[in-house]
Amino acid sequence: MNTHRYSSRLSLRLLCEDEVAMGPGKADLLDAIRTSGSISGAARAMNMSYRRAWLLVDVMNRCFREPLVHSAAGGQRGGGAQVTLAGERVLALYRDMEAAARMAARPKLEALMAQLKD
Amino acid sequence: MNTHRYSSRLSLRLLCEDEVAMGPGKADLLDAIRTSGSISGAARAMNMSYRRAWLLVDVMNRCFREPLVHSAAGGQRGGGAQVTLAGERVLALYRDMEAAARMAARPKLEALMAQLKD
Repeated sequence: MNTHRYSSRLSLRLLCEDEVAMGPGKADLLDAIRTSGSISGAARAMNMSYRRAWLLVDVMNRCFREPLVHSAAGGQRGGGAQVTLAGERVLALYRDMEAAARMAARPKLEALMAQLKD
Repeated sequence: MNTHRYSSRLSLRLLCEDEVAMGPGKADLLDAIRTSGSISGAARAMNMSYRRAWLLVDVMNRCFREPLVHSAAGGQRGGGAQVTLAGERVLALYRDMEAAARMAARPKLEALMAQLKD
């Protein structure tokens, strides 16, 4: 098989008008906030600016009924940040959705891969 | 339900090293070539330059074992273009794959949508 040269990518996005409420980048950001305990740490780990990470968090917190990330008091960069229970629930649903879609796509994906050049 | 403000987008891409061998844009381009009978007509219908459409076709034709689009002789813009049998097969597999992934994602997607603000 030619799996070394070929790969596939699946992405699912929830759009809230023209904004992405949840998608691959925001899900990874939630994971990174969970790991690092702060937005600035997550931004560093994902190689993005603090400002960009903060804006992504802001979109999520505005689009969902309950905030997905809670920033502790202590100044813009000072306090830590946690993924809330609502955030954990949304992230788990999103990852389950991705996994279900990926599994369902697999048979046709393999048939398509077989059509690619060696 | 808040379906008027919210939508979702699923995209599946087959990557051939760093090039996209097949994805949402290329599948739509194949559809447009089928409808218009030429690359230039498809480009117009999709609001892209002839050059861009031609490059996308070139990537597909290089990545797959058999060309997905056959351009008739008669100069760069002169001749028509058809989706080959191999192209029809790949397009059908791709659309089936999208449909299967979308259907599998639906239950979790609905649960996620329910978490969005009204």
